[in-house]
Amino acid sequence: MVASHLADVLSKLQPLNSDHASVVSMNLFVALLCASIVIGHLLEENRWMNESITALAIGLCTGVIILLTSGGKSSRLLVFSEDLFFIYLLPPIIFNAGFSVKKKQFFRNFITIMLFGAVGTLISCTIISLGVIKFFKEMDLGSLDMGDFIAIGAIFAATDSVCTLQVLNQDETPLLYSLVFGEGVVNDATSVVLFNAIQSFDLTNTSPGIALEFIGKFLYLFVASTMLGAAVGLVSAYIIKTLYFGRHSTDREFALMMLMAYLSYIMAELFYLSGILTVFFCGIVMSHYTWHNVTESSRITSKHAFATLSFVAEIFIFLHVGMDALDIETWRFVNDRRGTSIIVSSVLLALVMAGRAAFVFPLSYLTNLANKSPSDKISFRQQIIIWWSGLMRGAVSMALAYNQFTRGGHTQSHLNAIMITSTITVVLFSTVVFGLLTKPLIRFLLPHSKVTTSMLSEQSSPKSITTPFLGSAMDSFDDSPKGVHRPSSIRALLTTPTHTVHYYWRKFDNAVMRPMFGGRGFVPFVPGSPTERSEQNLSQLH
Amino acid sequence: MVASHLADVLSKLQPLNSDHASVVSMNLFVALLCASIVIGHLLEENRWMNESITALAIGLCTGVIILLTSGGKSSRLLVFSEDLFFIYLLPPIIFNAGFSVKKKQFFRNFITIMLFGAVGTLISCTIISLGVIKFFKEMDLGSLDMGDFIAIGAIFAATDSVCTLQVLNQDETPLLYSLVFGEGVVNDATSVVLFNAIQSFDLTNTSPGIALEFIGKFLYLFVASTMLGAAVGLVSAYIIKTLYFGRHSTDREFALMMLMAYLSYIMAELFYLSGILTVFFCGIVMSHYTWHNVTESSRITSKHAFATLSFVAEIFIFLHVGMDALDIETWRFVNDRRGTSIIVSSVLLALVMAGRAAFVFPLSYLTNLANKSPSDKISFRQQIIIWWSGLMRGAVSMALAYNQFTRGGHTQSHLNAIMITSTITVVLFSTVVFGLLTKPLIRFLLPHSKVTTSMLSEQSSPKSITTPFLGSAMDSFDDSPKGVHRPSSIRALLTTPTHTVHYYWRKFDNAVMRPMFGGRGFVPFVPGSPTERSEQNLSQLH
Repeated sequence: MVASHLADVLSKLQPLNSDHASVVSMNLFVALLCASIVIGHLLEENRWMNESITALAIGLCTGVIILLTSGGKSSRLLVFSEDLFFIYLLPPIIFNAGFSVKKKQFFRNFITIMLFGAVGTLISCTIISLGVIKFFKEMDLGSLDMGDFIAIGAIFAATDSVCTLQVLNQDETPLLYSLVFGEGVVNDATSVVLFNAIQSFDLTNTSPGIALEFIGKFLYLFVASTMLGAAVGLVSAYIIKTLYFGRHSTDREFALMMLMAYLSYIMAELFYLSGILTVFFCGIVMSHYTWHNVTESSRITSKHAFATLSFVAEIFIFLHVGMDALDIETWRFVNDRRGTSIIVSSVLLALVMAGRAAFVFPLSYLTNLANKSPSDKISFRQQIIIWWSGLMRGAVSMALAYNQFTRGGHTQSHLNAIMITSTITVVLFSTVVFGLLTKPLIRFLLPHSKVTTSMLSEQSSPKSITTPFLGSAMDSFDDSPKGVHRPSSIRALLTTPTHTVHYYWRKFDNAVMRPMFGGRGFVPFVPGSPTERSEQNLSQLH
Repeated sequence: MVASHLADVLSKLQPLNSDHASVVSMNLFVALLCASIVIGHLLEENRWMNESITALAIGLCTGVIILLTSGGKSSRLLVFSEDLFFIYLLPPIIFNAGFSVKKKQFFRNFITIMLFGAVGTLISCTIISLGVIKFFKEMDLGSLDMGDFIAIGAIFAATDSVCTLQVLNQDETPLLYSLVFGEGVVNDATSVVLFNAIQSFDLTNTSPGIALEFIGKFLYLFVASTMLGAAVGLVSAYIIKTLYFGRHSTDREFALMMLMAYLSYIMAELFYLSGILTVFFCGIVMSHYTWHNVTESSRITSKHAFATLSFVAEIFIFLHVGMDALDIETWRFVNDRRGTSIIVSSVLLALVMAGRAAFVFPLSYLTNLANKSPSDKISFRQQIIIWWSGLMRGAVSMALAYNQFTRGGHTQSHLNAIMITSTITVVLFSTVVFGLLTKPLIRFLLPHSKVTTSMLSEQSSPKSITTPFLGSAMDSFDDSPKGVHRPSSIRALLTTPTHTVHYYWRKFDNAVMRPMFGGRGFVPFVPGSPTERSEQNLSQLH
């Protein structure tokens, strides 16, 4: 996962006659990554901290030290580049999200997740945009056009739920976890799609026709990206199942999985689709089919290597955001108008909170109306947690803001500089302050989470407690029959549409898909790849 | 493993408003990597082929197709860049080499390996340089200076023994394998160090003093690089042993190993040392200490993930070399002097063969004189295989040639263009023709290799046959006491110096190093990381 900018910096790095300053930067950066991992591990038990905040803090400290040593010239080792982020850091994070998601929960709550992630993000974006327009006109801040305002909406609608997910337990609160997690992924995709749509649309004439066209485009992107991701995943499963039968090779299998996952992402770029959605669904399909067609060691290797890449990419991002926060060049720009920057940040933070409240509670109400069973209802306390979990702003916001308001990593006008510093302030404040409060808040709202949540959903079956490793990592979305209500009548089909779809999917999966693409229990016994021993070993190996 | 140039090309790749041509290139390239892996796997049983030749062939075919579709304009998807190679592709290959080398064999034959790898490469370089000087003067080819001539020597002294290693079996012919493998690594390092030394030395006045200074610098580089690699490896072992005791986390452990391995490489660059040697010895130390301090799943993950990265990097290089071979821009340059290019290539090939013969046979003779026991003597047939295994030229030669004779991937004069095309010709010819002949040659020279070689060395103990997985991957250099002759007298100490050093090293390792840094049998039992079950599981998991 090496960055385009990193590479630019490194392009002069040759053995012995290198541009020595960039080698020093590289060394420092990699050393700081190691330090973040070690310190994050040491602080793991801490009530308040988490890895993101640790990396942010280390980044900030390093920024201060560099600022002091360089005599106030620069706080940056590497300039933040949105290419770096979108091409190398985001794909492994999203792929691993799909690869390790609990598929049964995800698809069970699919409609709710889509409602929160897509509709909610649109509502949030609209409210933030409208608020910013009104506020900027009152403050008389200058010449932003309509596109800029909607872009600000998209930038601040992109949530970062990593902090919350580190606190929530997938087994204790499966409904809440899957909602927060699923919303996070769909939200990322929606924000990026939205942002790109804004950049490619002509926004000078706003008419209802454009809104419809926009929604049509969004739906097309969503469906096409999903299909592409699933298709690439199935091809990888088919190739490995067909060609590699009888003589497995872990290195080849893992290499193919890795390359095809990345291929799905860049293929989406090729067809002007959303790479985030594509790679997410590619991850889901790979974990459902491909992962069961490979050797034991490939399973362990792929699971942990993908998780590690995602982990390193996340720490990389937070470390970078921390260092970039002190970017002296941009701060100097707004030095004379520091008050303005603070006011803008506060307004944005308020809008973020309002925009999120404006969809979490109404949409939860709607969801609760549709769900008859009390176990699937979202309680008010859970609604607050969902609302809170989406208040943090992170790397996606930073990347989009840099994309919109800078050219080549440098700000060019006062207003742009103010937008960048405000984004940095919002990201830092929300990640550190809201992030630090997350653990105590969840402890307060869900004091006996084990009791509370095992009541909430029948999904925390004994199975997922006895085999937590397998359960959390590679839970197939059809492995536990008792989770599915078989429809006995038309009435049942109407009241439990998701479960019914799930039931027919399972039949289809067993009859058509798995014989063709492999999957749990469908890969014949291969010497050297004992399918039977798999679960046992994996749970031992954790 | 992403490339600096790739990144340059990609720097315009942004979602939805990208430079579409580069996205197409990326897609094609990743798809070709996948194809190479699949086709390489299908052809694995083939008598003649191997993965390198497959990737080269696919690269060549793609080059032809692109050349035809683009109407003769270009055959390249990506311009070959030596930065790409030295910063991202070479480190994982060399690290994995160190990580998976049979340490006992390697250190047992340490003196011979150094003799072949360092002294041999210097001899080879000298002979090629002298030959080229003489030949260029006779052909009256123009204005190359002394530095260029010695650089040509260094370029063509860099061997590529991958083809041979794919054919030789580490368990069947341990002595031969460790000699060829070890020579390959030391040779890579020597060539690069040599090349850099030439570039930084003033070669206008040649005196004996400079030769001495040069040898001194080489020795310093060698010792300092080795120490640095070992130090970083030990620090990683110490960190993981001390901090992670009792609550292991596979993702953190693997991330730390990966980052610290890369850190060792760039630290070497920082101190103007040889990154290749550093990362190689870091790999050795990590597999001896760090690898034993981590969880089961970390062991499996690190082993396979490092091997996969190395594997993908190798295929990447061969695919790239294949495509680059048809680089029309350079060929057009030499179009009018095609005859010259062919003559130069032939002369270079002859010099390569002569230069290698000039050290393999004399040095083998010397080695055989020093070794009293017949099991350690190198037979004439084995000498031929060692000579043959170093005839192939590969990516290191390409990278060095591009570094010396181009500016930014473009050739600038006729003579430089001839040197580039000659290098490409030598690389292609030696890899394809010599590579294809390697399997038959070894079959011919070692017809009953199992019988021949189990006689050759007592190292192919039953243990390494019953647990081939563990044996080939993580063979500690102190696990089998019977391989070590304990010196009973001064006489024994004089006749078997290597074994004696080995014996004292083992005592020191057990008494000081392993209690401090961990290692096999020295990491206390941790729940969730059952050391006892390790070997058993690993051998099942293959």
